[in-house]
Amino acid sequence: MADLCRIALVLEYDGSLFAGWQVQPRARTVQGEVQKALEQVMGMPVKVYGAGRTDAGAHALGQVAAFTAPYRYPPAVVQRALNARLSPDIRVVGAYTVPLDFDPRRHALRRQYRYLVWNRREPSPFWRRFSFHYPHPLDLPAMARAATLLEGTRDFASFAAPAGRRRTVRTVSRVAVTAKGPLLALTVEGDAFLPGQVRRMGGVLLAVGAGRLTLEGVQALLDNPRPNSAGPALPPHGLFLTRIHYPDFPPQEETPCPR
Amino acid sequence: MADLCRIALVLEYDGSLFAGWQVQPRARTVQGEVQKALEQVMGMPVKVYGAGRTDAGAHALGQVAAFTAPYRYPPAVVQRALNARLSPDIRVVGAYTVPLDFDPRRHALRRQYRYLVWNRREPSPFWRRFSFHYPHPLDLPAMARAATLLEGTRDFASFAAPAGRRRTVRTVSRVAVTAKGPLLALTVEGDAFLPGQVRRMGGVLLAVGAGRLTLEGVQALLDNPRPNSAGPALPPHGLFLTRIHYPDFPPQEETPCPR
Repeated sequence: MADLCRIALVLEYDGSLFAGWQVQPRARTVQGEVQKALEQVMGMPVKVYGAGRTDAGAHALGQVAAFTAPYRYPPAVVQRALNARLSPDIRVVGAYTVPLDFDPRRHALRRQYRYLVWNRREPSPFWRRFSFHYPHPLDLPAMARAATLLEGTRDFASFAAPAGRRRTVRTVSRVAVTAKGPLLALTVEGDAFLPGQVRRMGGVLLAVGAGRLTLEGVQALLDNPRPNSAGPALPPHGLFLTRIHYPDFPPQEETPCPR
Repeated sequence: MADLCRIALVLEYDGSLFAGWQVQPRARTVQGEVQKALEQVMGMPVKVYGAGRTDAGAHALGQVAAFTAPYRYPPAVVQRALNARLSPDIRVVGAYTVPLDFDPRRHALRRQYRYLVWNRREPSPFWRRFSFHYPHPLDLPAMARAATLLEGTRDFASFAAPAGRRRTVRTVSRVAVTAKGPLLALTVEGDAFLPGQVRRMGGVLLAVGAGRLTLEGVQALLDNPRPNSAGPALPPHGLFLTRIHYPDFPPQEETPCPR
């Protein structure tokens, strides 16, 4: 049997020109591009597993993905070889050897997402691809109070798509609203999220800020979980997967590959 | 005679897809695009004057431009009409009526530019169009000391192109080096700058940070002004015209247009 070596990558990508993370036939996806580059490097097809799917158009600053190489390969060499082959809208910013059973999705403790809102009458030539433009004034203190209501272990069915999951209870450990000039950041951290949940939470916070939804209305969405009652999701181009927390990743000490 | 009304605009633009500010035949320029949109709004050709030319590929957060409208036109209406016609890489973020003799170039007291450097081994998918990628470590305290040397009223001929101006004395009131994570900002403020001067000053600061140029070397460039001796300019895609200071603009009180 050949020696196996498991390598985990930290990835940044501008999602503008991707049909999301997950491989699809006839579409440019992040997983597809990384697998294609990796096949060139390794000389054979290699399947890459990501910690979380990102939607078409959504971005990542800290996506984690892992694969098992068929032979010993120093991670720094893999990183350089991948970056030389990938287009500039994806970068491998970290590469580590990890235990053979490392599963980036199932071993994740918490995921952090950030949703950016550009809150000025005129859109920004610079932030237009990386934020949702909301031109009207927002009540930030009200949004901060609504953010607190969204924290906790709750049934988030109201924030799920109509044809949703059976289990819709999730633990959201942090929801924060911060502003720097016209740029608002909605930061959300939790163990896991339903598809579209973060963008629907963003929609709810914005509705509160705009005065279209009261804090009681937000509370009612949590107390009476009904699929999709939270209203539409904000568009994906404002969403960033910013960080994934693990018990031991990036590793304190790298797992040596067999020799 | 028709009533005349002078309007000054504050412009933001992503310079990536422009051949710079100044009108040129068969090239997409900012001045050209604004004049084209304004001609549609006004129903006749109108010449727009900018405070400063920006190079092909360079950006602006606070360009100021003025034109004289052939008749009374509320600036807010002009702003909306222009933004409706301009492509999203240019935005009019302010519009004011000003005295008929307002000259955005000659009345400017100080201009502020910012040059962004992305200082991490891997380039950023997000900042690649708006910063220069420098992958090696930089000595920031040395750069800050060099920045101080570049302040003052000096002959900046060493920072001018070979076929430069006759008069090369300029007053640089501030040069600052700040860092936020891997993103370095070189901020330069002065009464006026020679073509390419800011990007050559950036090149000098980076050479100091990289250990390729000493503080004595920087001092010698100032003490022995010889065209182009400062070395090559950094590329334009990291450069932003951030702000232009005027005695009374944006105006405290807008000049009423004749009725």
